[in-house]
Amino acid sequence: MAKKDVFVLQDILLSNAQTAAAIRRELESRRILAVNLLSSPGAGKTTLLEALADRLKGRARMAVIEGDIETERDAERIRARGIPAWQITTGGACHLEAKMIGKVLPEIPTDIDFLFIENVGNLVCPAGYDLGERLRVVLLSAPEGDDKPKKYPRAFVTADVLLLSKADLRPFLPFDVEKAKAEALALNPKLRVFIISAVSGQGLDDLVAFLFRAREEIASRA
Amino acid sequence: MAKKDVFVLQDILLSNAQTAAAIRRELESRRILAVNLLSSPGAGKTTLLEALADRLKGRARMAVIEGDIETERDAERIRARGIPAWQITTGGACHLEAKMIGKVLPEIPTDIDFLFIENVGNLVCPAGYDLGERLRVVLLSAPEGDDKPKKYPRAFVTADVLLLSKADLRPFLPFDVEKAKAEALALNPKLRVFIISAVSGQGLDDLVAFLFRAREEIASRA
Repeated sequence: MAKKDVFVLQDILLSNAQTAAAIRRELESRRILAVNLLSSPGAGKTTLLEALADRLKGRARMAVIEGDIETERDAERIRARGIPAWQITTGGACHLEAKMIGKVLPEIPTDIDFLFIENVGNLVCPAGYDLGERLRVVLLSAPEGDDKPKKYPRAFVTADVLLLSKADLRPFLPFDVEKAKAEALALNPKLRVFIISAVSGQGLDDLVAFLFRAREEIASRA
Repeated sequence: MAKKDVFVLQDILLSNAQTAAAIRRELESRRILAVNLLSSPGAGKTTLLEALADRLKGRARMAVIEGDIETERDAERIRARGIPAWQITTGGACHLEAKMIGKVLPEIPTDIDFLFIENVGNLVCPAGYDLGERLRVVLLSAPEGDDKPKKYPRAFVTADVLLLSKADLRPFLPFDVEKAKAEALALNPKLRVFIISAVSGQGLDDLVAFLFRAREEIASRA
């Protein structure tokens, strides 16, 4: 592999912000769209990535970095879809940090289009750590309740995209989608909001189209 | 109010463990069962407390301390049930600490039977902080998935009670209750497990009976 085909990030002594900025430069110079997925445990991050793997098949190349306290379970689910996946286990820490991404980066193929980073399931801590992503995506699932944006504001304030997930469960729940959306937009008027279900497929075509456009923007500048 | 009828904890300079121990002594000397509720956001902690408020009415006195990053919403829901409630907003911190409880304690009536402390919605950070509770209760809701205990082990390892909540939603979900239970018990064989739904009432009579027995144990020793 030629020198230009590996990631050469030397990040170990840098602060999180510096490391994240270096990762972002490196990824964007390679026209890779990096997406950082944040949510509570069980909001549907891995299931969404499985659905995206199926929808991107034959159209784009993706890789996944999975963050969890313990277990390889999420990476195994992604690999079962034929997608390369790296598991970071934090061993207790409640969020990923840029240096953890920097350590994994040299192993990741440089010719991918999308790098999805699934953060530790936690609606609080990951919001404070830039991982070098281009897009930060927060998921709020219908069973969690429509009152969560103002109770956990930082994730919503710092995100670019809000996915109101598990829309297929809404008939069985008191979740008010307009209330959740309005509350999140009051915190962050620039949020792009999609109502999705990885089970029924609702909203996924729009989301995939949006991801391709965001990737085009990077590619056009690189 | 006579001296003996107020909480006199002087905790500000103590470590979390020392403060928690002092709170536990103070509460147990007054025959109060303190319960620390942990879970992901939206697993049903506040809805469970509303249901317990209704079931304990006329049988026991309870008070609630609510922990959240922002908003008074949860305390307002509890007060609407006629139960005294104090809201702690951490302003960003992902868990409650014993000193936060110590500061609120002097305001709480000393003649209650149960003090429920609802931690910040977070399946990671609160597990590291003793709040002076007698019982630590972790909720895992059906929509979160049956794979969570091993992915977020500390909450399950340190809890006394596991509530598999939102059982009413199980017909619509792939949640395997026996798998979740077995995985949690493999981490912590002493866990008491209840399958509950605050919506249908499933499991709540057993849970209330258990709470009364736990409170009796404290009262008999105080």
